[in-house]
Amino acid sequence: MSETEKKYTPVSKLGEFGLIDKLTTGFAPVNASTVKSVGDDAAVIDYDGKKTIVSTDLLIEGIHFDLVYTPLKHLGYKSVVVNLSDIYAMNAQPKQITMSLAISSKFTVEALEELYEGVKLACKNYQVDLVGGDTTSSVTGLVISVTAIGEAVADEIVYRNGAKPGDLICVSGDLGAAYLGLQILEREKRIYLEHPDVQPEIENAKYLIERHLKPEARKDVIRFLKEIELKPTAMIDVSDGISSDVMHLCKQSGTGCEINEGAVPISQDAYNMALQFNIDPITCALNGGEDYELLFTIEPEDETKLAGEYAFSIIGQMTEREKGVSLISKAGNRHPLKAQGWNHFTG
Amino acid sequence: MSETEKKYTPVSKLGEFGLIDKLTTGFAPVNASTVKSVGDDAAVIDYDGKKTIVSTDLLIEGIHFDLVYTPLKHLGYKSVVVNLSDIYAMNAQPKQITMSLAISSKFTVEALEELYEGVKLACKNYQVDLVGGDTTSSVTGLVISVTAIGEAVADEIVYRNGAKPGDLICVSGDLGAAYLGLQILEREKRIYLEHPDVQPEIENAKYLIERHLKPEARKDVIRFLKEIELKPTAMIDVSDGISSDVMHLCKQSGTGCEINEGAVPISQDAYNMALQFNIDPITCALNGGEDYELLFTIEPEDETKLAGEYAFSIIGQMTEREKGVSLISKAGNRHPLKAQGWNHFTG
Repeated sequence: MSETEKKYTPVSKLGEFGLIDKLTTGFAPVNASTVKSVGDDAAVIDYDGKKTIVSTDLLIEGIHFDLVYTPLKHLGYKSVVVNLSDIYAMNAQPKQITMSLAISSKFTVEALEELYEGVKLACKNYQVDLVGGDTTSSVTGLVISVTAIGEAVADEIVYRNGAKPGDLICVSGDLGAAYLGLQILEREKRIYLEHPDVQPEIENAKYLIERHLKPEARKDVIRFLKEIELKPTAMIDVSDGISSDVMHLCKQSGTGCEINEGAVPISQDAYNMALQFNIDPITCALNGGEDYELLFTIEPEDETKLAGEYAFSIIGQMTEREKGVSLISKAGNRHPLKAQGWNHFTG
Repeated sequence: MSETEKKYTPVSKLGEFGLIDKLTTGFAPVNASTVKSVGDDAAVIDYDGKKTIVSTDLLIEGIHFDLVYTPLKHLGYKSVVVNLSDIYAMNAQPKQITMSLAISSKFTVEALEELYEGVKLACKNYQVDLVGGDTTSSVTGLVISVTAIGEAVADEIVYRNGAKPGDLICVSGDLGAAYLGLQILEREKRIYLEHPDVQPEIENAKYLIERHLKPEARKDVIRFLKEIELKPTAMIDVSDGISSDVMHLCKQSGTGCEINEGAVPISQDAYNMALQFNIDPITCALNGGEDYELLFTIEPEDETKLAGEYAFSIIGQMTEREKGVSLISKAGNRHPLKAQGWNHFTG
């Protein structure tokens, strides 16, 4: 069947239960802990003595994503991944998710299947089971609510409140790329709306756009830390930007901190693109957010365990609370660090 | 301070984290299983060998509630209760909830505190802990997403698929009242919009309106069934209307069923109001939905355990699948039962 002959099915043709049946087909559980999955009033999970870890996120069209440039499959993938990231940030293993959708009448069954393809891929890549959800209609935009459930052995859980003065502050990967990917997509949308015949300029931006549209949760980092027997003293995932996220660690641990500007990891692509946009690259890295890297603190004597082994950066250290939260510039000057990350209510 | 002098605080004044801090104050955990509550990447729960039960619901302004006649405190209460109802329907005990909100800019901090008052009351009445959530902005209406988490001993869990032909179909309480309460509120809204000076006619409708605005989950029924050592063979909560909900039991158990029209419990208030609205009372009871009663099946020999003890009605029995799903009228005629419950996509 050619693209132009492709049939679209209105959701009303299937009804709520028919739709749920269709969308949740092919989500066979892979975890032994998934006792009862989709299809009852609730899911049943058995962690056999381990702790249950629960995290939830709400994604709203027009706030968290723009369907003009967000492929539905990517959106489904990202909706799952951002939740799993919270579970990894507890040093725990995600095992199940629930996924609820509110959709406007413009959505077809095929569009939802596209979204669920992304959910399915995320479930496969991270070995989690879709065990429930709720599907309803929306007066306006698309709403996605995901709850992730995981397991952990009690003494392996890492909270935000365990850092002590002197602990080193580490971050995985690089920062600011997702924010720049978003800026590119927004720019191309504006250009497209004004000049629909102009080809988009996204050739050198693949990495940045992918970081925004299809982020990964750092499952590999959690596995690696376990392998080298390094338990962080505190940990959080980078969703709002490290300037905001490090403050959560400081507030809950009762510490201050110093971040060294020169040590903050920025990819070459992100650095160049920031300059193109006339933004200071360090601002993107500190405040951009949505990197889904892991920001964690370790005892100073554990530094050798990380040496040369993996893509981690030691970007500063925890201090006494009285010293405040500071950024040490490349020139050695001290500036108070301000959380300018995503704030949906003051933006 | 008089009502007219009352100060309203825009949400932007607090920011996301300030708002979450303010709203979640006073939610001290009451369950030993709540190891870590609000404030980290995820919550930590310890059921000590029991099964974890998870259910989730999404409530959308304009679809599930109308803020013109829904007090925010009631809305907060109901958002929690409808989720707990799903956990009870597994014959399990809810212990924790997460609550996510997307709010438009028209919401003040005071309005959200009102909503959380209802959440707090539900947490108190049902002894559950609020352990997490997500608060974000919405382009248009209010979105509420609640996930309820509970515990159960493995062999006490009741699924939808355990009914056998010959099992009796029971329901707690009475049916159709919530639907009629909604009709009254919708009528009064129309009258108010046309004639703002007319006093609302809701005097004899207290029970019906309360059933819609502030439903309760049947925690007491679950406790009672345990006391009399009666384990249902299948169970579901009545959210879409029993004609739809009984079909879920039949489909999953591989049975048919016969519902006796004369045995379906309808309160006097609901009966009278249905006639006022020129609706057949049995239609309200079968298809109204949102009753949050428990619909369950029992082995015939367990009937004596229920006799005279509690407000249960035996409304029919499960049959072989080939006999289909039927309503037996008061005159003894057999009609195919049609699920006309809430269907957000075909309505």
